[in-house]
Amino acid sequence: MAVISSEMPWEPIARRKQSDRDGCIPSQWRISSAYLPKDPPCFADGPQNVLDVPLKILSKEEIDITEHYTVTTLLEEISRKRFSAEAVIDAFCHRAAVAHQLTNCLTEPLFKQAAERARFLDRYMDENGTTFGPLHGLPVSVKDTFDIKGVDSSTGLAALCFKPAERNAPLVDLLLSLGAVIVAKTNVPQTLSCLDSINNVFGRTMNPVNRLCTAGGSSGGEGVMVAMKGSLIGIGTDLGGSVRIPAMANGVYSFKPSNSRLPYGGQAVLVTESMTRLGVQPVAGLLARSIDDINSFMKELVPRTSLWGEDCVFGEWTDSSRRLQGAGSNGEIVIGVLRCDGNCTILPPVDKILDEVTSSLKKHANIKVVEVSTPTAWAKAQSVMDKLIGIDGGVLVRKLLESTEEPLVPSMQSRFKTSEPSKLTEVAQLQTRRTELEYEMLQIWSEMDRYGRRRRRLDAIICPVAPHPVPEIDRYNTLGYTNAFVMLDYPAGTIPIRDVVEQDLRLGQPLDGESLSSSDQGCRVLWDEKTVNRKVYLGTHLSVQVVVPRLEDERLGRIMALIDGVVKGHTTSPKLPQ
Amino acid sequence: MAVISSEMPWEPIARRKQSDRDGCIPSQWRISSAYLPKDPPCFADGPQNVLDVPLKILSKEEIDITEHYTVTTLLEEISRKRFSAEAVIDAFCHRAAVAHQLTNCLTEPLFKQAAERARFLDRYMDENGTTFGPLHGLPVSVKDTFDIKGVDSSTGLAALCFKPAERNAPLVDLLLSLGAVIVAKTNVPQTLSCLDSINNVFGRTMNPVNRLCTAGGSSGGEGVMVAMKGSLIGIGTDLGGSVRIPAMANGVYSFKPSNSRLPYGGQAVLVTESMTRLGVQPVAGLLARSIDDINSFMKELVPRTSLWGEDCVFGEWTDSSRRLQGAGSNGEIVIGVLRCDGNCTILPPVDKILDEVTSSLKKHANIKVVEVSTPTAWAKAQSVMDKLIGIDGGVLVRKLLESTEEPLVPSMQSRFKTSEPSKLTEVAQLQTRRTELEYEMLQIWSEMDRYGRRRRRLDAIICPVAPHPVPEIDRYNTLGYTNAFVMLDYPAGTIPIRDVVEQDLRLGQPLDGESLSSSDQGCRVLWDEKTVNRKVYLGTHLSVQVVVPRLEDERLGRIMALIDGVVKGHTTSPKLPQ
Repeated sequence: MAVISSEMPWEPIARRKQSDRDGCIPSQWRISSAYLPKDPPCFADGPQNVLDVPLKILSKEEIDITEHYTVTTLLEEISRKRFSAEAVIDAFCHRAAVAHQLTNCLTEPLFKQAAERARFLDRYMDENGTTFGPLHGLPVSVKDTFDIKGVDSSTGLAALCFKPAERNAPLVDLLLSLGAVIVAKTNVPQTLSCLDSINNVFGRTMNPVNRLCTAGGSSGGEGVMVAMKGSLIGIGTDLGGSVRIPAMANGVYSFKPSNSRLPYGGQAVLVTESMTRLGVQPVAGLLARSIDDINSFMKELVPRTSLWGEDCVFGEWTDSSRRLQGAGSNGEIVIGVLRCDGNCTILPPVDKILDEVTSSLKKHANIKVVEVSTPTAWAKAQSVMDKLIGIDGGVLVRKLLESTEEPLVPSMQSRFKTSEPSKLTEVAQLQTRRTELEYEMLQIWSEMDRYGRRRRRLDAIICPVAPHPVPEIDRYNTLGYTNAFVMLDYPAGTIPIRDVVEQDLRLGQPLDGESLSSSDQGCRVLWDEKTVNRKVYLGTHLSVQVVVPRLEDERLGRIMALIDGVVKGHTTSPKLPQ
Repeated sequence: MAVISSEMPWEPIARRKQSDRDGCIPSQWRISSAYLPKDPPCFADGPQNVLDVPLKILSKEEIDITEHYTVTTLLEEISRKRFSAEAVIDAFCHRAAVAHQLTNCLTEPLFKQAAERARFLDRYMDENGTTFGPLHGLPVSVKDTFDIKGVDSSTGLAALCFKPAERNAPLVDLLLSLGAVIVAKTNVPQTLSCLDSINNVFGRTMNPVNRLCTAGGSSGGEGVMVAMKGSLIGIGTDLGGSVRIPAMANGVYSFKPSNSRLPYGGQAVLVTESMTRLGVQPVAGLLARSIDDINSFMKELVPRTSLWGEDCVFGEWTDSSRRLQGAGSNGEIVIGVLRCDGNCTILPPVDKILDEVTSSLKKHANIKVVEVSTPTAWAKAQSVMDKLIGIDGGVLVRKLLESTEEPLVPSMQSRFKTSEPSKLTEVAQLQTRRTELEYEMLQIWSEMDRYGRRRRRLDAIICPVAPHPVPEIDRYNTLGYTNAFVMLDYPAGTIPIRDVVEQDLRLGQPLDGESLSSSDQGCRVLWDEKTVNRKVYLGTHLSVQVVVPRLEDERLGRIMALIDGVVKGHTTSPKLPQ
């Protein structure tokens, strides 16, 4: 007798995948339901922050290891044998397991493989008297899209489950060769093209700072994992803002390098292969707890990436002790402030944070701050970017979804559209428009004298990550402040500045001015007290974005460290000679 | 009464253009017909070398200025006011005018504009007490494709004549801003896609070393101009070998940088705009009398290109006094020798010159030489490159030719084919294949230990520029040794080593071995005494190509200087401490 099932083919795949994932969490790391927040989260239940829950669960040593070290100091402790790699990786995996149970941030917990690798590293050090490599024992997590041999890169699509990768992505190989240990892969949005990390296979990743707000995407699981301290460095990818947005959402630092700084190959393929080469190239990027961690990590990777990735070029990441020479007439670092992208007005807390940052920077003797008016090219870049991302027509994703009759998640239903791939001549026209915009944008960095000689006038730009604070779940909509910098291939990073406080909310005060565009309207809805209770933003993080010209990644790292230090008060203005 | 003309529309255009060009040469610079070689050149008439004819025509000071200085020493003399910019530019323009009458190398003599600019520079220095910029007074020539405001970029196509450019190419603006003076634009092949610089408007550029042999292309006029000492630096472009091949043909040095080292924008457009962005990006490159001249020039340009070209990234070109650290176990520079591209066997003189170069290098204590077997990816890259260059289908060139009923020159008739532009998905497949080949080629640069850790093993590769010596007119056919390095975006330069001598010809000895491919057959014809009189090669130059990984341009400049010094005997092995 035939069994009649009302299930769609994707459903048993998802169930089996979830059960496998559960099986990767050792029973001793399962947490009591007492720690679990109520689902779904509800405003009336009060603060929805789970960041500190692990402190109630982990051992003292585990808390010490996962909480109190930078990349540099942790690596030092391991190399001095104060901690074994095994102890470090065990502590981080335990914390990652707890984080996952609180936020659903992982797709592939790799705790068993990580422990094995850690024991190998310990043995290597015992036998050779030296570390295996400069990142010996460093706990790293990677976005689900990166191929790891024997592990799925499903991105939460049922059609891609149980199809383990045949080889490591070049970036994974590079990390392993330096001694890093990959503790888990992390969750992403369905089709990677929205900004909430939710899909049918793994479900939704929750923001640990405030479960009512979005965890961001597409590297949303990474943002959460780093914020929860389940790893020291998180590796994501960025095309529209996909490391910068989850970094903002979860209050951590991010770094989106230029194309060719980190290997991008060996990713789950959701668009026809090489379409990104013809449209816009996404990049691998970092999330971390501090800009110093990012710099320490990049210092080891960047000089070696061109041995591993055919898409990389040789670079250096020098010691930051060398003085940074800026474009100012006395060598000051000149920072331009770009407040508006021309499409969306920034909401009051975002404006305020820019004011606070610029006012701190202005007090520093080696920094000069200048306001920059919105280049029209920036506003225009966004629509060209949208079109270049879509040249593939979404045909591959559609085929994958159809193959298991998998539906779109609700937030994707109005966004996801498919069409025929563009014509080559249409793409060429878009690229011509892109070249024109690149040329226009180039002009903001320099000034020309009356004889036609140019000199650099700006070292970096600071601007918002988004025109709004971290929105509630499924309400993040504005890519204008992030996506153009991928099309322009400008390295860009984000710095979390401070939490939203009551005063930022201006309760009862409506927003001034006219709406600039339909996206501006969408953005204003996030501040309109008829459509949002502004108190939901309390305690979420406000961040700024720092941007430099193409391939000046190393300078970006140094300028971000300078800005961060000045704003947080741990870099003071140098005394001038009396 | 209607006038019936049997002329095609392109013919009067070409005639008028030629007459305008003639009008740019002052009467006092016209040379006596006694100096003019017989046309067409004929083997029976003996040596066909016109390189030294200018020495019979120029004044002593003009000979001194154009003959005895490097970029560095000439700029020094001008800045010390030993020469005025006007005197320098006048001497070079005179020499260029003579060179042109002997070889037909120019398309747009800019002598009048150059003299005006030189006088402006002299005035500037008088008024300000300093030079206008670091290249104050440097005579430069540029390939016809570069836009100069008010001047045609016709590339010898009638349809593009009398359509002056509306603005300067970014590279031209950059040169002017540094104080360089552009003395002329130089000739190219029809459609830029063959290797003899001949077209219907300007005619054929002749090789001054041996008028029986090709001047190369597509930057053929530049190769001749630099060899004839009509400028100190020539700027060409390279997609299939278009600076390296004319450099070899005319016995000068060339440097094809990585993409994004020199601005490429503002070129005559012969393919649908931005198709190069979707296929393979050509680059601007240099021709010069020495590698030192190239390094001195790049040192000033490279740190500034990213202010001018939206396609450029910031770079440095450090002083070569810093010790070059190589991949060898004691820091030696490790040079791999790649003899064969897998498609065409190299002919005996080319093999011999590689032997001579490697044997010189092996004697140097800081250089290690290793033979590298042909990577299959190199052979395969050539056909992918051919297809990527053709994605446009040649539709724009066809339209331009048809608009004035201009015929193809004879050597283009069998080469030039048009088709519909490729489909986007086809181009994506080609790019996927390209990525695979890039990844395979990457492997030659490094070695891996048993734990999967990589280290660099080669600093540079030397290989032929072509498998044959400089062929006779219209017989250059093999791009295999040059075009793949554009697809791979490896910087590559050429060094002229020595002339062909009688002994190299192995008269009476046929070539061994079987033909590898149809291009190999085409190459063997150039050595088969039934089809060529090998004595035609006597006195032409033998060169080698030096190649490094992407964006290691600065290292290429330094390694070329090292190799050149060692081979020519002006760098000796450093004494080891006793």
